[in-house]
Amino acid sequence: MATLLHRFSRLRLRSTLQFVSQYPVFSTRAMESVKGEQVFFGCQTLYGKHRCIHTVGGGTESSPPSAAPPRLPFSRITEDDLAFFRQLLPGRAITDPDMLESCNVDWLKSVRGNSEVLLRPRTTEEVSQILKYCNERNLAVCPQGGNTGLVGGSVPVFDEIVLSTSLMNQVLTFDSVSGILTCQAGCVLETLSQYLEERDFIMPLDLGAKGSCHIGGNVATNAGGLRLLRYGSLRGTVLGLEVVLADGRVLNCLATLRKDNTGYDLKQLFIGSEGTLGVITAVSILCPRKPKAVNVAFLGCSSFQNLLETFQCCRGMLGEILSAFEFLDASCMGLLEKHLKITNPITECPFYIVIETAGSNAVHDEEKLHNFLEEVMASSLVTDGTVATEDVKIKALWSLRERVTEALTHDGFTYKYDISLPVEKIYQLVTDMREHLGDRAKNVVGYGHVGDGNLHLNITSPTKDPALLAAIEPYVYEWTSGVRGSVSAEHGLGLKKRNYIYYSKPPEAVALMGNIKAMLDPRGILNPYKTLPDNLNLH
Amino acid sequence: MATLLHRFSRLRLRSTLQFVSQYPVFSTRAMESVKGEQVFFGCQTLYGKHRCIHTVGGGTESSPPSAAPPRLPFSRITEDDLAFFRQLLPGRAITDPDMLESCNVDWLKSVRGNSEVLLRPRTTEEVSQILKYCNERNLAVCPQGGNTGLVGGSVPVFDEIVLSTSLMNQVLTFDSVSGILTCQAGCVLETLSQYLEERDFIMPLDLGAKGSCHIGGNVATNAGGLRLLRYGSLRGTVLGLEVVLADGRVLNCLATLRKDNTGYDLKQLFIGSEGTLGVITAVSILCPRKPKAVNVAFLGCSSFQNLLETFQCCRGMLGEILSAFEFLDASCMGLLEKHLKITNPITECPFYIVIETAGSNAVHDEEKLHNFLEEVMASSLVTDGTVATEDVKIKALWSLRERVTEALTHDGFTYKYDISLPVEKIYQLVTDMREHLGDRAKNVVGYGHVGDGNLHLNITSPTKDPALLAAIEPYVYEWTSGVRGSVSAEHGLGLKKRNYIYYSKPPEAVALMGNIKAMLDPRGILNPYKTLPDNLNLH
Repeated sequence: MATLLHRFSRLRLRSTLQFVSQYPVFSTRAMESVKGEQVFFGCQTLYGKHRCIHTVGGGTESSPPSAAPPRLPFSRITEDDLAFFRQLLPGRAITDPDMLESCNVDWLKSVRGNSEVLLRPRTTEEVSQILKYCNERNLAVCPQGGNTGLVGGSVPVFDEIVLSTSLMNQVLTFDSVSGILTCQAGCVLETLSQYLEERDFIMPLDLGAKGSCHIGGNVATNAGGLRLLRYGSLRGTVLGLEVVLADGRVLNCLATLRKDNTGYDLKQLFIGSEGTLGVITAVSILCPRKPKAVNVAFLGCSSFQNLLETFQCCRGMLGEILSAFEFLDASCMGLLEKHLKITNPITECPFYIVIETAGSNAVHDEEKLHNFLEEVMASSLVTDGTVATEDVKIKALWSLRERVTEALTHDGFTYKYDISLPVEKIYQLVTDMREHLGDRAKNVVGYGHVGDGNLHLNITSPTKDPALLAAIEPYVYEWTSGVRGSVSAEHGLGLKKRNYIYYSKPPEAVALMGNIKAMLDPRGILNPYKTLPDNLNLH
Repeated sequence: MATLLHRFSRLRLRSTLQFVSQYPVFSTRAMESVKGEQVFFGCQTLYGKHRCIHTVGGGTESSPPSAAPPRLPFSRITEDDLAFFRQLLPGRAITDPDMLESCNVDWLKSVRGNSEVLLRPRTTEEVSQILKYCNERNLAVCPQGGNTGLVGGSVPVFDEIVLSTSLMNQVLTFDSVSGILTCQAGCVLETLSQYLEERDFIMPLDLGAKGSCHIGGNVATNAGGLRLLRYGSLRGTVLGLEVVLADGRVLNCLATLRKDNTGYDLKQLFIGSEGTLGVITAVSILCPRKPKAVNVAFLGCSSFQNLLETFQCCRGMLGEILSAFEFLDASCMGLLEKHLKITNPITECPFYIVIETAGSNAVHDEEKLHNFLEEVMASSLVTDGTVATEDVKIKALWSLRERVTEALTHDGFTYKYDISLPVEKIYQLVTDMREHLGDRAKNVVGYGHVGDGNLHLNITSPTKDPALLAAIEPYVYEWTSGVRGSVSAEHGLGLKKRNYIYYSKPPEAVALMGNIKAMLDPRGILNPYKTLPDNLNLH
């Protein structure tokens, strides 16, 4: 399979981009409002024993838009409050500082809150009682699933009460005819996957964090992940939700139907709202059949244009069995080789592709893949490649894509961006950024989900470098906005990116989001300081 | 292929159903509120020359929940208003009664309004100007696409201004790498399909009304159709919308990205809101590649249990190439034979299935289909069958399913229901209804989309029969509610079903829908009397 064919070069990528900003992006007024507040740097409270992998800005003095705003005037928790919670949740209202530690810090160790109480309800009714009480008492609440978020959305910013779904981990029903699963929000994704695989189904989403993340958190953050290209987003696969509103009312929209056109689809409000509009307590989700055959190909391309043409060819020839089309650039490969001593299995190329197929007939799938590979190599779109059909080799090829993040952590301080772009522009941001930064950056690398138009742009530096950050931002956001991309493809906005929303959404849309927040959570107790920008002044 | 094998009978279908109503369905208070108003029967204004195919209730004296409520206190249109519209839309503000006729009546000829003006904007800016003016003047507006709706949602109830999208029919962009199309809302579905097929793509939805319906209307009603099993609902495939709000503000959420987690997903509010929250002016949608091979199988089953087991086997063995799994019962076949002289291509059976495959490799698809058919016939799940691979024969087999509606119109007056149910209960409603009605009905037949859990239940009678209707309703809605089904799977609520919403949604959810309506359209000018129940008192 691995043969070197003619090279092919067409460099049209950089010729057409224009910065056509359709929105008044991050309007001056919005900036002023942010700047006018006494914002302080979120890293002030960083958990000292760990390195700050995801920084949230340039330092206390510069008060970047990612820094935490001042604490809002919520009530402080009292002994009476604790007594109420202890009675409601015997043994499950935690105040032990050691036990609180892990729920106050995100898993990147990049942000830290100071919550003094962790509540662990088991039932929807308990969640309802908690929120009714907190709303009446004006106590802020941070809903928390597996705490695997990347934007500071899943930990308290100050002393918000942490409401954990970890004990709400029961599968409620599974219908093996329709493939519809209903479960409590605290079920761990991997546990659900195992449950389903025993029944010949799979979850429609898969993530690196699957061993920890909760399905409720996945839905609350509209998680993307590795299967989106094939099975679509949670907007289509989530069929129903049960949600507790800020005042304790239970909204039962836990339908288990593929079709239901009776009124507005309220559950969509809560998908991706990061716990700011309600607490998801149960989920129903449509699960696909487990594929009978899986293949992975690792290919090299001489240009990004060739990679795009390979993608088009792939969609035509692999069609319904294509389940992933991922890429990494030569710089990523260099980091894998240098820091993790991983050997490149094919000849050196500017770009590498990981293609996965998943289907119901192994012979057919291999034949389709073979035909596709013959076509792209004969036409020189692909210069070299290797294919795996066995599980061990499949994992080895996938690791070339999956371990890039780990390799980056060995390369120095890393500035990380999760950007959604029109597919044909996905790599131009990397080349433009590389040129823009010149030798100020150690490495500028790109990898990600080509099939979803999702670029992971990473910039490394020997140490944390405010001057470098100032060269990256707002350049990266303006560039993204200029091509109508999204400054958060799959990670959400959380605390860190809340004020960057205007780069991807017009002011009218953000204002309407504020209205929705005010309607559903008039006291603003649910996950404050997250998702929406500070200038909405919701409290 | 067509061979008769052993029969197989397991009659467990009727043994487990219980009426477990989780909601206080159609609460007494809600009913009183509806009854307390001077509602009158929508058919009073029926277009006299045509038969009322879809009745909306039992007559003026009984004021059924489907009847129109009294006119709300909107302004009446004046000469000044007309002058404004004529200046804004030269030659496109229509008052000619002959030209108004077709937009005042739905295509089933079941409901009729009395609008005196039809506006035909070409641009979003014109729509914005129209709504700004109407909102200030308190003039009600009925947005209208292809006017192919089935629940009286697309025509005025009284004198609402008709705002037609018919001249907003431009394709804006198409990206052949990502398959993302953006277009104005008035593009006809079939025109878009043709545009895409020339580029080797297809629309992710297909409907019987494709020659007339507009994509904006499809999105506004969250249309289902024939491809939902394969490509999912519009909730997943619609990537962006441009919407004009009731006060004329333009909400630009016309993203062309597969992933975007920057804030709440506002476009979802407008998908399926039937023009009551805003007027959709442009759509971006993710389009799949055109399949290279299509096959259709027509099979017979001796019981519904066997049909369900065939569905499970089919999902496993056809997997990713399965694109439709539809059914009709023996009564439907009887009507096809009797009224349309169609010949049953296989031996007589209680149930018939139409299976369609669509894939990227004809040889592979035929082999998968062959293996599946061998399996289900060897195990006696299927008793007989025939397969078509040529276009003419494919159409002939599809017509057995598609012409059931036409056959019904020849059988007498038809009471039609579009019900969503858990897949395993999809036929029990038909058998229970048959037993419940006894010889009061002429025929009780069931057909529909098994794969989507969507039953089309039809009951015929020699003539319109209020006593029969009283036996059907609310029985059919209570039965549906008892198994947590939906009283409108794909048609929406419109005028006719607005007051039945409580059978499928809890009061908290309906109340929240009312809050959303009040937030986005405080004067209630957008498509009044539709979707939401009368008891919300929104005006």
